[in-house]
Amino acid sequence: MRVLGVDPGLTRCGVGVVEGVPGRPLTMLGVGVVRTPADAELGQRLVAVEQGIEQWLDEYRPEFVAVERVFSQHNVSTVMGTAQASAVAMLCAARRGIPVALHTPSEVKAAVTGSGRADKAQVGAMVTRLLRLSAPPKPADAADALALAICHIWRAPTLNRLQQAVALHTSKGRTG
Amino acid sequence: MRVLGVDPGLTRCGVGVVEGVPGRPLTMLGVGVVRTPADAELGQRLVAVEQGIEQWLDEYRPEFVAVERVFSQHNVSTVMGTAQASAVAMLCAARRGIPVALHTPSEVKAAVTGSGRADKAQVGAMVTRLLRLSAPPKPADAADALALAICHIWRAPTLNRLQQAVALHTSKGRTG
Repeated sequence: MRVLGVDPGLTRCGVGVVEGVPGRPLTMLGVGVVRTPADAELGQRLVAVEQGIEQWLDEYRPEFVAVERVFSQHNVSTVMGTAQASAVAMLCAARRGIPVALHTPSEVKAAVTGSGRADKAQVGAMVTRLLRLSAPPKPADAADALALAICHIWRAPTLNRLQQAVALHTSKGRTG
Repeated sequence: MRVLGVDPGLTRCGVGVVEGVPGRPLTMLGVGVVRTPADAELGQRLVAVEQGIEQWLDEYRPEFVAVERVFSQHNVSTVMGTAQASAVAMLCAARRGIPVALHTPSEVKAAVTGSGRADKAQVGAMVTRLLRLSAPPKPADAADALALAICHIWRAPTLNRLQQAVALHTSKGRTG
């Protein structure tokens, strides 16, 4: 399973590609940050995010895209830019027919560290260990993108079983 | 000046095209709503918004796109979808090199009714009068999109003069 994780943001959009299956060592294929200039017009910044995401999709051909779920309760000054950048990432994936999954920050932290309230350093340390890297990826947005991809690989089997159970239940309900 | 106004939303995205110049009667060229099914996946809904906006840009070739500025203080349950739909509209315009302007709801209300606190009915009534329509456009999102376009046509000369003044000031600052 090859997953592109996206930690959305207008100034820095973290991106990381991880390949693997649950219970086996994971492999990092790529990590980076899509940046857009803070003094550019909003529309131009969204175009730059789109071009950046498209390049990552072209180069790595992920089977899934995992994006951090944005909450409006977050920091009011940055939440709109985050929502807009995440919309562009979801749009790019959906346009290619790549399934998009959203994971909350606490789901991601819990997946890689065991605690939904872990701090950035802890997430960075676990990403480094799980992907057998020589140092934590910088900036934190890049590490968060890798953590999202890892979270998706580990949560996907459960999510798929849940979806299958729901589908089965629904079809039984229809016939019964 | 031909302007496409966009009242962003995931379930209903109002769109309206108005042509004219300040001080002269305005003409409505088209009005409608881009809808996406509430039960579709978020990525698919954003793709549907993109396709809808692209169709309007193809058909009417506006010189400007005016989008309602989204605030995170608004209704928490809908603000994320609104931000995401507005991101897609801005992206579509910017990709074609069409200038995008954002106007706040109170700027739009003040422009067409004289009061920034006018209600939906008042905005609808003034849009109907200003565009010499036989009845208020339905739903309200469609009327709001037309109001955005009218607001842009009337505010643009002031905004342009401001931008020119800023540019002049900046270039003087650089040479001085």
